[in-house]
Amino acid sequence: MNETLKTIQTRYSCRSFKDASIEKEKVDAIALAGVQSPSGLNIQPWKIIVVQNKEMIDEMDKTLMNKLASLEDRSIYERMMNRGGNVFYNASCMYIVAKVPGKDLDCGIVVENMALAASSLDLGNVICGMAAMLINDECGAAYKEKLIPEGYEFGVALLVGYPVDTEGTPHEPDMSKIIYVK
Amino acid sequence: MNETLKTIQTRYSCRSFKDASIEKEKVDAIALAGVQSPSGLNIQPWKIIVVQNKEMIDEMDKTLMNKLASLEDRSIYERMMNRGGNVFYNASCMYIVAKVPGKDLDCGIVVENMALAASSLDLGNVICGMAAMLINDECGAAYKEKLIPEGYEFGVALLVGYPVDTEGTPHEPDMSKIIYVK
Repeated sequence: MNETLKTIQTRYSCRSFKDASIEKEKVDAIALAGVQSPSGLNIQPWKIIVVQNKEMIDEMDKTLMNKLASLEDRSIYERMMNRGGNVFYNASCMYIVAKVPGKDLDCGIVVENMALAASSLDLGNVICGMAAMLINDECGAAYKEKLIPEGYEFGVALLVGYPVDTEGTPHEPDMSKIIYVK
Repeated sequence: MNETLKTIQTRYSCRSFKDASIEKEKVDAIALAGVQSPSGLNIQPWKIIVVQNKEMIDEMDKTLMNKLASLEDRSIYERMMNRGGNVFYNASCMYIVAKVPGKDLDCGIVVENMALAASSLDLGNVICGMAAMLINDECGAAYKEKLIPEGYEFGVALLVGYPVDTEGTPHEPDMSKIIYVK
């Protein structure tokens, strides 16, 4: 099996990051993988916002956890409490893919390129849609203003850092999802 | 640079495929990369339909080209004529990612995993959203019935085959799309 297939096979969603910052070359290589993504007619309907300010990530985490605690349905809050009490898992770096409205598929392509790049560099990573509950909510209005460029909206985020446990397990592939047509 | 980053960097959209079928192990490895994709809460809101029947792909191509020729706006038809006169570029294999309605971002993740897998196996590939103009149109109703499972809808397709020209060029990455936040 070649290295690319191995990266795809062994990548897992990391939900606990060490207090260790990421080397600049790695931070940059991940962002570069994002902008190397294909897009329809090569329109590239995205921006990639790289947040390495750990203090800001931690503040965003607290703000979102407070919001989740205040919801009537506390199931997400409780899931996060069971996973360590933080929603961004102590990530050192957050990549936000901002998109032109409607360009969700393109966002998926970009975030997977970045996720695989991070895994190939021995970094833990997890795709985080939940950051939308902060950025698109009143409680996160200041972050939206600071992070999302004019004309774009939040698409998806990727949390990256050195994993606490490097032996994460990917999901079992469901082969019944593949249909061969004769 | 590691092999995964190299695959991401050198992958290009291939728009001319040889008359050569793909080895079964490669066909399977690409589909496997698809079902190894991450998804929110691991819901895997997709099916991957693998079409290796070249006659069917060619028929679909003709049907869609006829439709494009009949449109008032013939710009797509003319683009396709300039590119060789076919919309699926003589691909040996078409992977359709069918999605649960609304799950476009997940589709993007799946199709990029498969595209990178194909490139890593020295196969040309191109992401094809345009197949929607066939599958979701009256002229493609029979294909929709045959290919798209109940409860799912067309998401995106990946065309794969051996490239006529192996020296394709990826787009120049636009570094201005990366914003570093202090």
